[in-house]
Amino acid sequence: MVTGGMGFIGSNLVLRLVDLGARVTVIDAFVPDHGANPHNVSPVADRIQVIRAFIDEPACFPALETASIVFDVAGQVSHIDSMTDPAKDLKCNYTTHLGMMEFLRRSNPKARIVHTSTRQIYGRALFLPVTEDHPVRPVDMNGIHKAACESMNTIYARVHGMDAVSLRLTNTYGPRQLLRHDRQGFISVFMKRAMLGQKINVFGTGQQLRDMNYVDDVVDALILVAAVPDTRGNVYNLGSEQAVSLRQIVESLRGICSFEVEVVPFPAERASIDIGDFHSDYSAIQGVTSWKPRVSLAEGLLRSIEFFRSNWDHYA
Amino acid sequence: MVTGGMGFIGSNLVLRLVDLGARVTVIDAFVPDHGANPHNVSPVADRIQVIRAFIDEPACFPALETASIVFDVAGQVSHIDSMTDPAKDLKCNYTTHLGMMEFLRRSNPKARIVHTSTRQIYGRALFLPVTEDHPVRPVDMNGIHKAACESMNTIYARVHGMDAVSLRLTNTYGPRQLLRHDRQGFISVFMKRAMLGQKINVFGTGQQLRDMNYVDDVVDALILVAAVPDTRGNVYNLGSEQAVSLRQIVESLRGICSFEVEVVPFPAERASIDIGDFHSDYSAIQGVTSWKPRVSLAEGLLRSIEFFRSNWDHYA
Repeated sequence: MVTGGMGFIGSNLVLRLVDLGARVTVIDAFVPDHGANPHNVSPVADRIQVIRAFIDEPACFPALETASIVFDVAGQVSHIDSMTDPAKDLKCNYTTHLGMMEFLRRSNPKARIVHTSTRQIYGRALFLPVTEDHPVRPVDMNGIHKAACESMNTIYARVHGMDAVSLRLTNTYGPRQLLRHDRQGFISVFMKRAMLGQKINVFGTGQQLRDMNYVDDVVDALILVAAVPDTRGNVYNLGSEQAVSLRQIVESLRGICSFEVEVVPFPAERASIDIGDFHSDYSAIQGVTSWKPRVSLAEGLLRSIEFFRSNWDHYA
Repeated sequence: MVTGGMGFIGSNLVLRLVDLGARVTVIDAFVPDHGANPHNVSPVADRIQVIRAFIDEPACFPALETASIVFDVAGQVSHIDSMTDPAKDLKCNYTTHLGMMEFLRRSNPKARIVHTSTRQIYGRALFLPVTEDHPVRPVDMNGIHKAACESMNTIYARVHGMDAVSLRLTNTYGPRQLLRHDRQGFISVFMKRAMLGQKINVFGTGQQLRDMNYVDDVVDALILVAAVPDTRGNVYNLGSEQAVSLRQIVESLRGICSFEVEVVPFPAERASIDIGDFHSDYSAIQGVTSWKPRVSLAEGLLRSIEFFRSNWDHYA
C-alpha cells in the first residue's frame, strides 16, 4: 500500500514496486494543490488499485486490514501553506496518520509502516552534518506535525509492538514532481523557470547549502528500509554525499537550459521559516541497508528536465 | 480568560485571579472524566463568566477577541487515556489550542497566552536536574501533543509576533484535584486511598524521584510569568527544591492518615510509559521572575487532605 501514491514520491515508488512485481494499492485523497496527478501512474494504471480517500477513512479499511507494507508517503509538503492553513496541515500530516495507526493497531498490527518524514523538523542546524540525534526544533507548522507523526510511530513501535520506521527526507527532486504552483520548495520553481527560459530569483546570498536527492534514490531507500528486519520505531536521515549551494544548483541547470539569475533578498514570509545551511549525516541508514545516493545532481536534473519536456502538458 | 477554569489547576488560578481583582472569563468544555467540577469555583461563582465550550468554538470568540491574558490550562492530562484514545487527547491538547491560536492571530494578536505544558515531554531523563534544553522525547501520546502545542506557541511567537509562553509543569497536587478515578497520576490515588484508610500500592521500587508542586505555587508561577514583558515563545520548567521518592511521599501522607503500603511490580500498561527518576532545574524562570516553590510537601499534603475532608462529597 502506498499512501499519496498519485503524488511525486509516491508515484515513483508505485512504478518501481509494480516493476518489482508487487501487488500495489494506492491511497490518495487528491487534495487540490497537492501533488496527485493521474498521469504520474499512467504507465501502470491497469495494474494497481486506487482508492480515492484519506487514509483514515473507511474506504481504506479493507485494504489496510490485509496490507503487508504501508508506505506512508501522503502529506502536505508546503512549508508556506502550513503557516497559512495549519489546520489543513494537521489533518494531512498528522490526524489522518493517527487514524491509520489506530486502525492498524486494532486490525493489522503486524503491518510494516514506512513513513516519510523530513529534515525540516531539525529547524536551523546547530551543527553540520546533522545526525539523527540533533535536537528537533521545527520552524514551521509542517515541521511540528511531521515531528509529531515520527514520535507517534516511535511510541506505537515501543508501546504497541508495531513495526514503524521513519525516513527523514531532504530536498527531493525528479520526474512527476508538482510544478504547477510555487509553494512546494525551490527546486520545482527553478526547474520550471529554467525550462521556460525565465529569470530565476535566488533568495538570500545563494550560498545556502542543501542536500539534493534524486527521487529514484529516495525510492531505493524506502524499499531497502522496508526489508530491514529490526528497525522498529527508528528514524533515519537521507542525504547526499556533498551538499550544494543554491547557486551551484542553478549553475547545474544552466548546463541544461538557458536563463538569467538574480540574487534577491528573502521575502519576509520565507525568511521567518528559513533554516540556513543544511547537510545531513546518513551513516545510520547505511548501518542497516546498502543505501547510498547514486544519481548525481547533473544527471538527476537532466533526467528530470527530459521527463518534464516530454510530458509538459501534464505538469505545467 | 482561563481555559479549563473549572478543573484542578484552572480553578485554583481563577480563585486567585478573582481575589486579585481581575475580571475572569472561564472557558471549560466539561469533558466527562476530566477535572471540571462546578464546586471548584463555587466561592466566586457569581463573579465570573463561564462559557461551556471548547476553546476553538464560536461561543468563545467574543471573549477571545477582548481578552488581555489567556491562561490556557485546558487539557487532557491522563497519560494512560492518551494511549487508549489518542484522537481525544489530540483534540483536547492540540487541535482546540491551534484553533484558538488561529483565532487570536486574526482577531486579537496582542493577547498574551500563558500555556501549561508538562515535564512529561522530556520522556526518560538523560541527565538530572533536567534543564529546558534537554531533548524532548515524549513517551506517550499526551507528551507528543503537549510538545507540539509548545512548539506551536514558539512558532506563533517568532513568525507571527504573538506573545505566548509555556510552563512545563511537574507533578502538581492540591485542593480541587480530580479524585474520582485513578487515571490522572499517582498523587490523587495516594491521597484518596490515604483518606479512606486503604492500602497504597507503590509501583516499581518506590524509589522513583519526582518533583512535587503544591497548586498554589503553580498558580504563583502562572501569574508571575504573565507579567514578564519579554518571554515571547519561551518555555520554563517548574520544579521543587528537592525531588522526593514515591516512598517519601507515602511516608509524608502517613504523617496525616493511617494506611498500609505495598511495593508492587509495575502494571504493563504503565511500565511502558514510565519515565524513571525526574528532577527539574527551574533556574530559568527564576531569571525572569521571583518565583520559587514555597509550600513544603508536608504542608501541602496537609492542606490538601483538610480541603478534601471538608468537601468530600464533591470530590470522592
